[in-house]
Amino acid sequence: MNRKNAKGKTDMTQIEEGAEILLDFEKMQKAVQGGEAIIPVAVQDAESKEILLIAHVNETALEYTLKHGIATFWSTSRNELWVKGATSGDKLELVDVLVNCEQNSLVYLVKLLGKGSCHTEGTDGEARFSCYYRKISDGKLEFIR
Amino acid sequence: MNRKNAKGKTDMTQIEEGAEILLDFEKMQKAVQGGEAIIPVAVQDAESKEILLIAHVNETALEYTLKHGIATFWSTSRNELWVKGATSGDKLELVDVLVNCEQNSLVYLVKLLGKGSCHTEGTDGEARFSCYYRKISDGKLEFIR
Repeated sequence: MNRKNAKGKTDMTQIEEGAEILLDFEKMQKAVQGGEAIIPVAVQDAESKEILLIAHVNETALEYTLKHGIATFWSTSRNELWVKGATSGDKLELVDVLVNCEQNSLVYLVKLLGKGSCHTEGTDGEARFSCYYRKISDGKLEFIR
Repeated sequence: MNRKNAKGKTDMTQIEEGAEILLDFEKMQKAVQGGEAIIPVAVQDAESKEILLIAHVNETALEYTLKHGIATFWSTSRNELWVKGATSGDKLELVDVLVNCEQNSLVYLVKLLGKGSCHTEGTDGEARFSCYYRKISDGKLEFIR
């Protein structure tokens, strides 16, 4: 497995559509470089219970989410508020915000307002339902949806 | 809502068993201070699809998980490998590891080998099934299980 800081060196198509494991373990080190106080949030479809994505929120993003009822994050790459689906239309309507024991991570239970939640497209040309469309199998990535 | 760095100032019982929102937004800043290259992982019960916890893994923890078939993380507070359930017995058997589009987060699909996955105990004195036993409701935390 190649788990070296892949994103800098590797084409995004290879990362997103390939079968090679190219995990970007530098993700969190980079994510906090913006200086924002953030915690992770797993986003789960309230109906199917599939996990759609994992992102991060700061205080502003959580407040925006609770106020507007639309899943909103802090983009650690752009260092700005990220209203999911604001450009693509694939917004996620908030159903509930769950909080863990230690109050340092969240679950957003959501309802999809668009067709998918991932920025990548499946073979049908539509946004993929979930970002977790591959699993690790024998040292490779196997497409599961 | 008090979202200031709560853990340093507040009793853990208040954080874990209280109805007050005391989110620790400093979590990720502290998590990367150990210098480890980590990515977030959401742990999901393969049967009920409930999200049990969110933790982090480095390369070592992922390799250990794949090799031994037991959900293993990197403890960002103790800065060491964390074989979940090694002391409590509440191990999580690995079913699958899912990888997201950008290859910077994971989902562990697991089967509970103990009674719960949380280090806190419910009113029955047993480990809670999931760490997400509260939701945000009108600026407070409401117990949902």
